[in-house]
Amino acid sequence: MKLKMMYSFLNSDINVIEEALENAIQAQSPLLHQASLHLLQAGGKRLRPVFVLLAGKFGDYDINRMKDVAVSLELIHMASLVHDDVIDDAELRRGQLTIKAKWDNRIAMYTGDYIFARALELISNIDKPYAHQILSNTLVELCIGEIEQIKDKYNFDQNLRSYLRRIKRKTAILIAVSCQLGAIAADVEDELHKKLYKIGYYIGMSYQIIDDVLDFIGTEQELGKPAGGDLLQGNITLPALFASENKQIHDKMVNVSEHTTREQIQEIITLIKNSGAIERSLKVSDQYLQKALVLIDELPTNRSKRAFRDLVRVIGKRRF
Amino acid sequence: MKLKMMYSFLNSDINVIEEALENAIQAQSPLLHQASLHLLQAGGKRLRPVFVLLAGKFGDYDINRMKDVAVSLELIHMASLVHDDVIDDAELRRGQLTIKAKWDNRIAMYTGDYIFARALELISNIDKPYAHQILSNTLVELCIGEIEQIKDKYNFDQNLRSYLRRIKRKTAILIAVSCQLGAIAADVEDELHKKLYKIGYYIGMSYQIIDDVLDFIGTEQELGKPAGGDLLQGNITLPALFASENKQIHDKMVNVSEHTTREQIQEIITLIKNSGAIERSLKVSDQYLQKALVLIDELPTNRSKRAFRDLVRVIGKRRF
Repeated sequence: MKLKMMYSFLNSDINVIEEALENAIQAQSPLLHQASLHLLQAGGKRLRPVFVLLAGKFGDYDINRMKDVAVSLELIHMASLVHDDVIDDAELRRGQLTIKAKWDNRIAMYTGDYIFARALELISNIDKPYAHQILSNTLVELCIGEIEQIKDKYNFDQNLRSYLRRIKRKTAILIAVSCQLGAIAADVEDELHKKLYKIGYYIGMSYQIIDDVLDFIGTEQELGKPAGGDLLQGNITLPALFASENKQIHDKMVNVSEHTTREQIQEIITLIKNSGAIERSLKVSDQYLQKALVLIDELPTNRSKRAFRDLVRVIGKRRF
Repeated sequence: MKLKMMYSFLNSDINVIEEALENAIQAQSPLLHQASLHLLQAGGKRLRPVFVLLAGKFGDYDINRMKDVAVSLELIHMASLVHDDVIDDAELRRGQLTIKAKWDNRIAMYTGDYIFARALELISNIDKPYAHQILSNTLVELCIGEIEQIKDKYNFDQNLRSYLRRIKRKTAILIAVSCQLGAIAADVEDELHKKLYKIGYYIGMSYQIIDDVLDFIGTEQELGKPAGGDLLQGNITLPALFASENKQIHDKMVNVSEHTTREQIQEIITLIKNSGAIERSLKVSDQYLQKALVLIDELPTNRSKRAFRDLVRVIGKRRF
């Protein structure tokens, strides 16, 4: 079942968001506009806007206010991807050349800054100081997450806790905040928008774990980039962490560096796949989804509640 | 006369700002904290905080509110310097190694992002949607300015207009907005905070022109980096623009590239200095300062008004 079918009742609003995204990155500078558009047109699941809209349905839903929040959060996500690709020295993203590959690191840095500034312009239309505080705290956490990821690169002796903290900062918080800010923009009361935050957080944790699993088990076609990229770049994710409990695998992994060949990585990937680490990782992901489902059950009944539940099921099985 | 003496009545508040700056960059991540602190301790004139405080004195001045705005704007300035140094591949800033030189480009990029996110956290305490809109518009302009600067590198055939537009985005707007947001945070009425914006804008334009002049006429000791750096990096500033009207100088300049030696640059600097371009540039700077003075005269009388006037005089003569 396709992700989009989970929230078909939002289709026309999602089209509004898509159009608003294109408008948002219009720039007087042709270079900035091209670079931003290149990224936008590479696609993406627009997961953060979807969560904004779904959460907004629990309150006083006004598509114009929702739009500013949804577009803003997707732009923040996009900006972080652009800066991420500079760090990871990534050539491909969603099957397309990255901005740093098509132009260079400097253009990528400022395109990220620019998209980010556009995001702030849009969210500044939301007249709720609390929303701005939440968002700015999130941005601080995002940056700390990124720096920690750089610091932990090729560190094969980290623990589960540091991995979970990293993906929380890197992914889960922004999805959590998408739910929360969507709700806040729709005047949802405190208790409910905090619950939506938690639901988003659990879904986000699971989502990133599955992403990290897919980087090992996905095909190049599915991923839009070669498998094993995380490990090659020294990003130690959950499957690698679990697999490294096996001394033989651990000893092979600690020799991974930027100079490791694709063939060598392929050998380690096979070892990891056969170690049970994939299944253990997916189990952790499932635990987060179960926690999300418990909270979703407590939500008021409406189409969004059903969509959240369906989304959780699809995310748990996703292979895309 | 020293810059600081212009606003000695603000001394204790400036100490508050300095302390708040140190607090603001405290980070759980030691790497982020070290990199940010390194930049902070390299010093700086804290010009943007000074303008925030001076402008606030025209209204209901509460140091706690002023502090958030002042620190936020200084942090935004700092963040843009960090990203700037990545672009310019700069080794030295204020006589100290840059973050990109002491660590690397990736750390510099995220340290910039982090400092910037901290700035947003602080300004989010200001409960005025208008202030956030002004700031986010400013950030967009800043980014466009940076991208335009990359695009215009080693383009020796640009015109005065594109130079002025670039320094407006790069420097003048943030100083203008420092004045305006300081005033808005102190509940200054519309007409007056708009006037303060304009005063900041004129001062900022002059300030950047003088900066660009000093890059030609300053000593390495005064600048904290070798003279002629702008030209060597392909940043065509006002003295270079004026001098290039002379065909002999123009023909020498168009050959400047990243591979030009210090000796070759030195020869061109001497030609530029002897062409009258420095004097012409300073005249443009003076015209901006005169416009600032006209508006300063219209301000209500208080110590800030005198400080603005004194600042304009000192900035016009600065050699630091």
